[in-house]
Amino acid sequence: MSDKAFQDYYPDELSHCYGCGSNNEAGHQIKSYWDGDSTVARYQPREYHTAIPGYVYGGLIASLIDCHGTGSASAAAYKAAGRELGTEPPLRFVTASLKVDYLAPTPMGIELELRGTIAEVKERKVVVDITVQAGNTTCATGRVIAVRMPDNMLGNQ
Amino acid sequence: MSDKAFQDYYPDELSHCYGCGSNNEAGHQIKSYWDGDSTVARYQPREYHTAIPGYVYGGLIASLIDCHGTGSASAAAYKAAGRELGTEPPLRFVTASLKVDYLAPTPMGIELELRGTIAEVKERKVVVDITVQAGNTTCATGRVIAVRMPDNMLGNQ
Repeated sequence: MSDKAFQDYYPDELSHCYGCGSNNEAGHQIKSYWDGDSTVARYQPREYHTAIPGYVYGGLIASLIDCHGTGSASAAAYKAAGRELGTEPPLRFVTASLKVDYLAPTPMGIELELRGTIAEVKERKVVVDITVQAGNTTCATGRVIAVRMPDNMLGNQ
Repeated sequence: MSDKAFQDYYPDELSHCYGCGSNNEAGHQIKSYWDGDSTVARYQPREYHTAIPGYVYGGLIASLIDCHGTGSASAAAYKAAGRELGTEPPLRFVTASLKVDYLAPTPMGIELELRGTIAEVKERKVVVDITVQAGNTTCATGRVIAVRMPDNMLGNQ
């Protein structure tokens, strides 16, 4: 795996995301990487990310899937275009649709591993399937349909 | 609308949720109410809940839909059983599946309104459809499939 995460290649002005922006000190700052043909991110839920005591909040899991999905989409788009991550113009994606199936309660105190499979890559749309593991337990699966960020969002700062 | 939110009737030991638990000081503490046959919750995103500057983080929207969905599921189950909210045994729900479609970028600085429609009520499963409005714009729609909380989760503290 590269030392530099997908999100570390985002332009500075697009790095404020609560889930994955390195400029958002209050946020999760998740980092996604290639691992062969799949993508991987790891996150240790904070103590306050509780659903009921002992279990991780499902909204956090949805958030992690969301950001790992759009990050993976960006990386997959660069790869499909034969371009290096971070080259101009930026290929940045937003979520059009997010689906999460919660398969098992997610125990607290374990680092979660998110693994993404690129299911489809088109110029303006990438589909990423994601599993969330806590140790040997698959706690959730998700699908992110990501679309290229509209130009008017890129311009709003 | 009642003064007391659905979440205010949750037993104390089940009120630690990051999204809607009144005992979670770090969390969103969202509150859901009946408004006729639909359910409503309002939330003002914090400044750090950014996607890109000017827009609200999609993971937050998913989280709000999730908690408004399980809260609405609980209220709908009490109503279907002809019981008052808060009566024993507690009818508390968890999310089996969450789907969110992001229809328009969600602008910052506006209180969001989530409105839930109860699509299906069975003894152990409730389906809630939710829209998220920022002013006159419908920013997202979601569907929460909620299931009765397993007894072994109720017992883990």
